[in-house]
Amino acid sequence: MNKNSAISVANALQPKSKFRPPAVNQVQVEGFFGPRIDVIASQTARILFDRCVEAGMLDQIDPDRPNPGLKIPYGPGNTVTTQMFWDSDLAKSIETAAYALNRHRDSALEARIDAVIDSYGRLQADDGYLNSFFLRIEPGKRWVNLRDQHEMYNAGHLIEAAVAYYQATGKRKLLDIMCRYADLIDSVFGPQADQKHGYPGHPELELALVRLGRTTGERRYLDLARYLVDARGEAPHYYDQEAIARGESPNDYYFDSYEYCQAHKPVRDQREVVGHAVRAAYLYSGMADVATEFSDDSLEPALEALWSHLTDRNLYVTGGFGPSKENEGLTFDYDLPNDTAYAETCAAVALVFWASRMLGRQPDARFADVMERALYNNALAGLSLDGTRFFYDNPLESHGRHHRWIWHNCPCCPPNISRLVASVGTYMYGVADDEVAIHLYCENVAALEISGTSLTLTQKTRYPADGRISVSVDPETAIAFTLSLRVPGWARGHHMAINGESIETAAEKGYLRIHRLWQPGDQVTLDLTMEPEMLYANAKVAADQGRIAIQRGPMVYCVEETDNKAPLNAYVVKDGAAIETVPVDGLADAVGLLIEAERESQPDESLYNTVPPGRQAARLTAVPYYLWDNRAPGEMLVWLRREA
Amino acid sequence: MNKNSAISVANALQPKSKFRPPAVNQVQVEGFFGPRIDVIASQTARILFDRCVEAGMLDQIDPDRPNPGLKIPYGPGNTVTTQMFWDSDLAKSIETAAYALNRHRDSALEARIDAVIDSYGRLQADDGYLNSFFLRIEPGKRWVNLRDQHEMYNAGHLIEAAVAYYQATGKRKLLDIMCRYADLIDSVFGPQADQKHGYPGHPELELALVRLGRTTGERRYLDLARYLVDARGEAPHYYDQEAIARGESPNDYYFDSYEYCQAHKPVRDQREVVGHAVRAAYLYSGMADVATEFSDDSLEPALEALWSHLTDRNLYVTGGFGPSKENEGLTFDYDLPNDTAYAETCAAVALVFWASRMLGRQPDARFADVMERALYNNALAGLSLDGTRFFYDNPLESHGRHHRWIWHNCPCCPPNISRLVASVGTYMYGVADDEVAIHLYCENVAALEISGTSLTLTQKTRYPADGRISVSVDPETAIAFTLSLRVPGWARGHHMAINGESIETAAEKGYLRIHRLWQPGDQVTLDLTMEPEMLYANAKVAADQGRIAIQRGPMVYCVEETDNKAPLNAYVVKDGAAIETVPVDGLADAVGLLIEAERESQPDESLYNTVPPGRQAARLTAVPYYLWDNRAPGEMLVWLRREA
Repeated sequence: MNKNSAISVANALQPKSKFRPPAVNQVQVEGFFGPRIDVIASQTARILFDRCVEAGMLDQIDPDRPNPGLKIPYGPGNTVTTQMFWDSDLAKSIETAAYALNRHRDSALEARIDAVIDSYGRLQADDGYLNSFFLRIEPGKRWVNLRDQHEMYNAGHLIEAAVAYYQATGKRKLLDIMCRYADLIDSVFGPQADQKHGYPGHPELELALVRLGRTTGERRYLDLARYLVDARGEAPHYYDQEAIARGESPNDYYFDSYEYCQAHKPVRDQREVVGHAVRAAYLYSGMADVATEFSDDSLEPALEALWSHLTDRNLYVTGGFGPSKENEGLTFDYDLPNDTAYAETCAAVALVFWASRMLGRQPDARFADVMERALYNNALAGLSLDGTRFFYDNPLESHGRHHRWIWHNCPCCPPNISRLVASVGTYMYGVADDEVAIHLYCENVAALEISGTSLTLTQKTRYPADGRISVSVDPETAIAFTLSLRVPGWARGHHMAINGESIETAAEKGYLRIHRLWQPGDQVTLDLTMEPEMLYANAKVAADQGRIAIQRGPMVYCVEETDNKAPLNAYVVKDGAAIETVPVDGLADAVGLLIEAERESQPDESLYNTVPPGRQAARLTAVPYYLWDNRAPGEMLVWLRREA
Repeated sequence: MNKNSAISVANALQPKSKFRPPAVNQVQVEGFFGPRIDVIASQTARILFDRCVEAGMLDQIDPDRPNPGLKIPYGPGNTVTTQMFWDSDLAKSIETAAYALNRHRDSALEARIDAVIDSYGRLQADDGYLNSFFLRIEPGKRWVNLRDQHEMYNAGHLIEAAVAYYQATGKRKLLDIMCRYADLIDSVFGPQADQKHGYPGHPELELALVRLGRTTGERRYLDLARYLVDARGEAPHYYDQEAIARGESPNDYYFDSYEYCQAHKPVRDQREVVGHAVRAAYLYSGMADVATEFSDDSLEPALEALWSHLTDRNLYVTGGFGPSKENEGLTFDYDLPNDTAYAETCAAVALVFWASRMLGRQPDARFADVMERALYNNALAGLSLDGTRFFYDNPLESHGRHHRWIWHNCPCCPPNISRLVASVGTYMYGVADDEVAIHLYCENVAALEISGTSLTLTQKTRYPADGRISVSVDPETAIAFTLSLRVPGWARGHHMAINGESIETAAEKGYLRIHRLWQPGDQVTLDLTMEPEMLYANAKVAADQGRIAIQRGPMVYCVEETDNKAPLNAYVVKDGAAIETVPVDGLADAVGLLIEAERESQPDESLYNTVPPGRQAARLTAVPYYLWDNRAPGEMLVWLRREA
């Protein structure tokens, strides 16, 4: 059986001129991301699995092992234990392993995953229900608290794992298990009077069902995804009703407002990104998928407003969002503190998901620019260079006390950043019936299909080390279609040539859209002007006033104590200061920046002084933000002091 | 009976050349603090009492009312409910009321206090034990958890209330009640084999026992204070032992380390201020009192090192400390964030206590300067101008969302700042056998006694509006002693005259010490040069780099949105910019400052821009920090952006 046959079937569902990502196994990634994927394939995938096992997760999911019971207490005052997320942690680890196997088969790892899948097979209830927490730890509490207890969230992650494992190995067992479970959910939840009208307290199932529908070609999964989106926040409020059914008052909700889970109003009425950041971006991802699959224009005003609200007022320059630890989420507009930034790795990963899905209807660099910013900066920082340690929160300033974890008591981020990086090829392209969009540049070979014709695209580039990209366009036979190449928002200029001939064409929404009869062997080259830039934040961002960030291409830079002299806030950079690229000690492949600066020195050690500090000429060495804390520990700073 | 007779007795215990504060009723305060005390006397004292009643406190302490039981649950994972502090909240409210009655008798208020005292009289156990929580809410748990349950802390506050009420009204009932309780504690705790070797988890009883000893002349209370100081942190550790006796593991301590309560090592081995800020300063206050009363030099190295650690590395410019909400206390050196500053009102109040007690051995402006900084800035901010609202935490930057509370679920701060301000006269002077030190300047009349001779000191001054102070020295008969006047550290210059004749004398530890035969009617004038100053923070204070604070005299200034245009971080002040004093709208008595500045404006509304902001000339209006949030709500900023 052709592994891609399911994809072909699913494509038949797709309305014309809608864009879908290729499957992970269609894009062979090298260049910048190649070594990162290799580390995940050779190290991280196994490590994730080991740490899930050490945490005791297999004892929970394997029905043939003694029941471990509740080992991790419910949190104070709320109704959550991390133990109830374990299916999702395992699922994301399986998904990462699937992409690792896609990179290179590893029979030992595959056997371990198969054993977990066998456990899930034995665990699954006769009616298809599958949740290790409610089957083994708290039986009888199925579907009683969608608001808090992550039941649908776990289902979604297991569906994504099933799709990934199927695509990587061709093995259908987990996919079949999850189709059975999805079918059960589809029967229990829906608009009919005899169905429950619920939806996920932590969105995720929506986007997963779209993936499942696209992969299996089963329309009902897309319909169920749409139902979950449509039902959200409608009156009478399902979370009120289920709270009352549990004998609780809806007013006792731990997070006070359903804004926390974006169920405070119907999704089409939502205009501001609120609440828990990961929940938010997962929901909006599902909304965008539904908008794409159903050509549902009624979701557009909400999606557009939410996007603007996030990117115009609430996005860190590193592509992270959600400044507050309290709710792991949003606070108020322009609240972007640096040293206390929560900016969870999972939220940046989720923003990549959302942005990529906003590209489902058309190429638009607004979305791809943010996708790239989140990917190369906040998200990528989540994983150490050696693939063994993980950031949960991602401040933009550290006083030397912030380091990657080996593991976390809520281990959502490690497998999330790992699965994203290992599947990054899928975010590089969007494929419609008559158009292929290149959203991200990186050396790779993509095996695509356009209007039924096989198409190989081969990117040759050192990007993001420089801005020169060559694309070989190799359709099986000559075929007319539109090839769209993104011109990133950061590029001060660009030059395109086809088969050596310069092409002048205006970018449409940030894409150069070339419609022609493409011949095998056609060569497109794109040169993007990539220079270091100083960025100034809006005056309403209190923490960044009197400061600049430095960006080169998609990379936001930081300075670290290991390359510079602490305290880092003693350095001042003048507007227009010279910046040159340099190699960096201990980071072989990185493009470092050397920045002309001045350094202040205090007259004495007193805490407060009436004498201003003195100034000496100095230089700062900056490295891409995602690389920080991979060498010696110490201070780190993104927003450098500036003076006019 | 002469109300002051107890004080005279106590003075007989005092070693020569040690300084004690006058009682509150010895100093009639007017000038700057007069209206603040009047507001407390006419408004706040009653409001505090009303809110204690509304919270249900009287139901707990009155044994003739139905037992309310535990109404406020124990906190998550720890062993504390705010209900167990209620004795202290009432006690501080009684203490405030006592000072209010001292200001002007109010028979209605006095009757309410007497009724509470009657309740305590009926509540007190036959053996003298007095704690409403353990007598009524959790009987049988007396003395089982000194570490967490604030039992001795409540006792200390009730003792302070008893002393204050006795001094204000001459009524001994509460004083007698608390002496009986103190006697019980003295019998239960101590060094003997048949005594418990415990000490307060939240220090307070130590300093209270010194007050009780000084007031009653009973040496045993001072001895008990010394015991509590000496026993702290000694091995075997009492908190370990009592945890084991409760069937708990000492390792399960909610705050992980006894650093939280400064019991991690014996007090004489402590060198760094750690843990919960209020606990810390209350402990150090008790240590300083014991050092003074017993001429105990062995405490000096610890007290000096702790003082340096706080004031050289961990003190906000507003005189607050303890940046973190997590432990309501210290984190790491130079960690002084502005917008997330916890800087609890109670901690600044406690610092006034500690600093005043560091003056017990000799006049030293190091201590009085910090006392003044904490008092006029962080502490005073805790109370609204109208005396009805209270800050708990005191950030140095607000984005417009921080406002005073009507009340707080942990209402420690409202009565604490109120009792401090209402008793501020006592902090103005230190009286030894042959010396009177003037620590703080404010219009007042002080009825003191020096070597058995009555001495009236009358300060005439607009301080801190300006730096000119006249002191009338009126001994009953001519007497030789030393009058010491503080020259604040902020004063760039000073001029002193006695009876119109200029006196040139070098300051000793920041005090002009004038020994002479003082005649009735002698006049001392002191002119302190009071100009606005720009303060620069140590380079290790990350949050303050590229910023200045502005101080004039003891007052640290802030800018508020109501006087300026938000965002306040758009303003930049050049080193040496002109600053002039001006009146301020809506703050009749305040000295405002008008500061030459520039204001930045962004080229557009984008979140991040490659174009630097433009600049226009502008002016900033600044007001004393303690006055902020008394007019229109909005942004507030202490540390202004600066450029060289």
